[in-house]
Amino acid sequence: MRAGGRAVPAGRGAEMEPRGVSVSAVLPAGGSGERLGGTTPKQFCAVQGRPLVSYAVRAMERISWISDIIVVVSSENIATMKTIIEKYGHKRVMVVEGGVTRHRSIFNGLKVFAEKEFSSHLLQKPEVVIIHDAVRPFVEEDILSKVVMAAKEHGAAGAIRPLVSTVIASAADGCLDHSLERARYRASEMPQAFLFNVIYEAYQQCTDYDLDYGTECLDLALKYCKTNAKLVEGTTDLWKVTYKRDLYAAESIIKDNLSQEVCVITDAKETAAQVGFLLSESLKSQIKVEAVSTSQSKNDSHLQNILSGQCYNFVCVNDKNCAIQETQQLVDMLEKSDVPLFYPVVLILVHLDTSEYNSFSIGVEELTSIKKFARETKKKNILVYGLLIQYKVQLEATSPCPVTGCLEEEADPHLAATFFQVAVESKWHYCHPHFHGKDPLLLQETVNSAATLIMALIKDRNTGLIGQLLVA
Amino acid sequence: MRAGGRAVPAGRGAEMEPRGVSVSAVLPAGGSGERLGGTTPKQFCAVQGRPLVSYAVRAMERISWISDIIVVVSSENIATMKTIIEKYGHKRVMVVEGGVTRHRSIFNGLKVFAEKEFSSHLLQKPEVVIIHDAVRPFVEEDILSKVVMAAKEHGAAGAIRPLVSTVIASAADGCLDHSLERARYRASEMPQAFLFNVIYEAYQQCTDYDLDYGTECLDLALKYCKTNAKLVEGTTDLWKVTYKRDLYAAESIIKDNLSQEVCVITDAKETAAQVGFLLSESLKSQIKVEAVSTSQSKNDSHLQNILSGQCYNFVCVNDKNCAIQETQQLVDMLEKSDVPLFYPVVLILVHLDTSEYNSFSIGVEELTSIKKFARETKKKNILVYGLLIQYKVQLEATSPCPVTGCLEEEADPHLAATFFQVAVESKWHYCHPHFHGKDPLLLQETVNSAATLIMALIKDRNTGLIGQLLVA
Repeated sequence: MRAGGRAVPAGRGAEMEPRGVSVSAVLPAGGSGERLGGTTPKQFCAVQGRPLVSYAVRAMERISWISDIIVVVSSENIATMKTIIEKYGHKRVMVVEGGVTRHRSIFNGLKVFAEKEFSSHLLQKPEVVIIHDAVRPFVEEDILSKVVMAAKEHGAAGAIRPLVSTVIASAADGCLDHSLERARYRASEMPQAFLFNVIYEAYQQCTDYDLDYGTECLDLALKYCKTNAKLVEGTTDLWKVTYKRDLYAAESIIKDNLSQEVCVITDAKETAAQVGFLLSESLKSQIKVEAVSTSQSKNDSHLQNILSGQCYNFVCVNDKNCAIQETQQLVDMLEKSDVPLFYPVVLILVHLDTSEYNSFSIGVEELTSIKKFARETKKKNILVYGLLIQYKVQLEATSPCPVTGCLEEEADPHLAATFFQVAVESKWHYCHPHFHGKDPLLLQETVNSAATLIMALIKDRNTGLIGQLLVA
Repeated sequence: MRAGGRAVPAGRGAEMEPRGVSVSAVLPAGGSGERLGGTTPKQFCAVQGRPLVSYAVRAMERISWISDIIVVVSSENIATMKTIIEKYGHKRVMVVEGGVTRHRSIFNGLKVFAEKEFSSHLLQKPEVVIIHDAVRPFVEEDILSKVVMAAKEHGAAGAIRPLVSTVIASAADGCLDHSLERARYRASEMPQAFLFNVIYEAYQQCTDYDLDYGTECLDLALKYCKTNAKLVEGTTDLWKVTYKRDLYAAESIIKDNLSQEVCVITDAKETAAQVGFLLSESLKSQIKVEAVSTSQSKNDSHLQNILSGQCYNFVCVNDKNCAIQETQQLVDMLEKSDVPLFYPVVLILVHLDTSEYNSFSIGVEELTSIKKFARETKKKNILVYGLLIQYKVQLEATSPCPVTGCLEEEADPHLAATFFQVAVESKWHYCHPHFHGKDPLLLQETVNSAATLIMALIKDRNTGLIGQLLVA
């Protein structure tokens, strides 16, 4: 369930489902984010192009056992929030206008389940309600399931984390009064969960002072319903995006999650398949590699499987220069899937330069066509880069075949590729006249350099460099 | 004083200097970093290629009024720490072996000022000692000065921050006992400062239990010397690198700080100067631009000033392809300065393509020479990228001069450049036959695209893409 992560293995989701309990969620998203230092409230700041709140909504929406998701925003952000829901196709989400404080906003969110006059259509009251911040994008199903089950048993539950800093009390003169023993205390984080009746009653009974100055829901449940919440140890990724550095961290975590797997697609032609094979081998030490070695058209179902497995990186190896038509098919498939809707997809077009000479000529038109293609696919959140691999490298006269020592050259690239492959597999113990046309060590070096470039492009997802043709 | 930031304006440093007080610093760096999830202790993790502890040491070292800097590390890391000090040329630093806990390590650090038998040469005892974590890389002179002055007055002082999460106490059954009123409490951060005699006495008097289980120095000063520390509100960047996400955040903050200024250097030739001018104009909206418009050799002192002003990004515009010799001079200057010792420097070689045709040919040798140059300069922490700007774009017959409507072409590029310049300055109201050889709108577009690529390279500092030739 982590952002950009792999799909939950079959069966695991079912295990995590809290049985025999109806669950909905309220996401307060009304904060002004003044600690962030910008004018945009942090929940609407873009991370990899998508507003932070959409990540939290998505984290809830992906969990089938959560019925309704109530997002509470301030009145001036209702339209923005509705646009986000529409743009990302979020389902089971209702936008509710918040109050002036966090507690008043959460209370408003709860009212749609209980007060007819508040909502045009009263939603089905859940047994347990989850409360989760819109600015904690990485919440996993596991912890949600744990707090829901604990709330069902104890009436209330919340995630906690160890304190990072010592907590101290200051005296009126701005000096230290006392410091707390760190081991006895915990930081109260989100998600929290409550029996709906417990938290709703607490909000109904609490004072205006509570509503205006309090922030802690667990506290209200204790104070007004005598419910001691069960505390559940959470993971590090539950932290709240508060400062600009937290946005940076969120961005890097997402990029990291998106860089776990690459799919290498090669057409059926021999040269491309060979290079694709070598490239996959070289990439394997750095990233999980899915290889689709025949032409795409014959492998729709395999590719479709990879897409539904949430792969965000594709390398297409073609022996034609700028095989844009061939790639369009993949772009269409990606567009039909949800993949680029939520995260930018990296698509690297590998061209093999098989020219005989020690230079290559690139037409302006060709460069322009990659750039144009990249600009178009960028609109679909697919980042296209070109990568040229010099496949045919002539042996210089001073660099004889390492085995036979001869200097002959052989022109047939297909045969050469075959023999190259054999040479690679036999770790250079095999040699053949046909093979003299290329230097296997040099090609291996080129492929390794291509793998380095591919990893750099995948990890950075730099939108400024789309449409560029890199040379391995 | 911020990492990678501009130098402190003249005079300001003097203002911040705490007068009439001798100051030294102890940096505990003995932690194992198990919360980070890796095997390398977090203080030795590389951020932009340099260990985190070196940032904290550098932050202290840059402040002239701090005499000695004691870094306390565990015995197995003494050699590593000494290597770091030598590699980065850190001055006024002594490495001391730590104890098994944080308090024992700090105590060992203090002993070098007080106990002859502990150190081969007893250091001059400071009036005030700063204690700062090695994993808080962004400490500024301002807050150091404040805690030192407060310590001189009150005996002890420490930086504090508002709590981000509510703090709760858990009962024995793992349920909520009570939650603390957030406004009354603060997170105790670093730096802290003490009258040396106060903190040293506190350590001498405290119990083994304190030394083994305590962590808070302010607490010891209160408990054993009746000294209520003055609490000083700190800035957000004092936070402690604790989790992997904090390393990500530190990396992004440093990249951000390094992307504040670019120096555009053009040779004396007209075309290069014109493009350099347009490029500077286009970059200005995104970054501070220093322009050095004549040849480098005549501007050693200007460039030297820029280097000492801590500029980390350079764009060299030449009308020769791959003007590597010309750039070597700048690389030599950079190498002599401290700049690439502490942070990676981005150096973009802009080549103008003035060929008449709608394609350009790049020799493998030429590409190889940029890559080779980039690999060499990488060893000096200078990241070199190539950027090709197509300067001579022929008007197509279907695209007449926007002012006169005529379709003539004119071959002299130097004259054309001059008229282009005039056309830009007069916002297209001027036209001349000589100008018809190029399309000013298209050139402006190319320059803007070059500026986008430059910003992308500067912001990402991607070591995987060095030696690549991008095309604007």
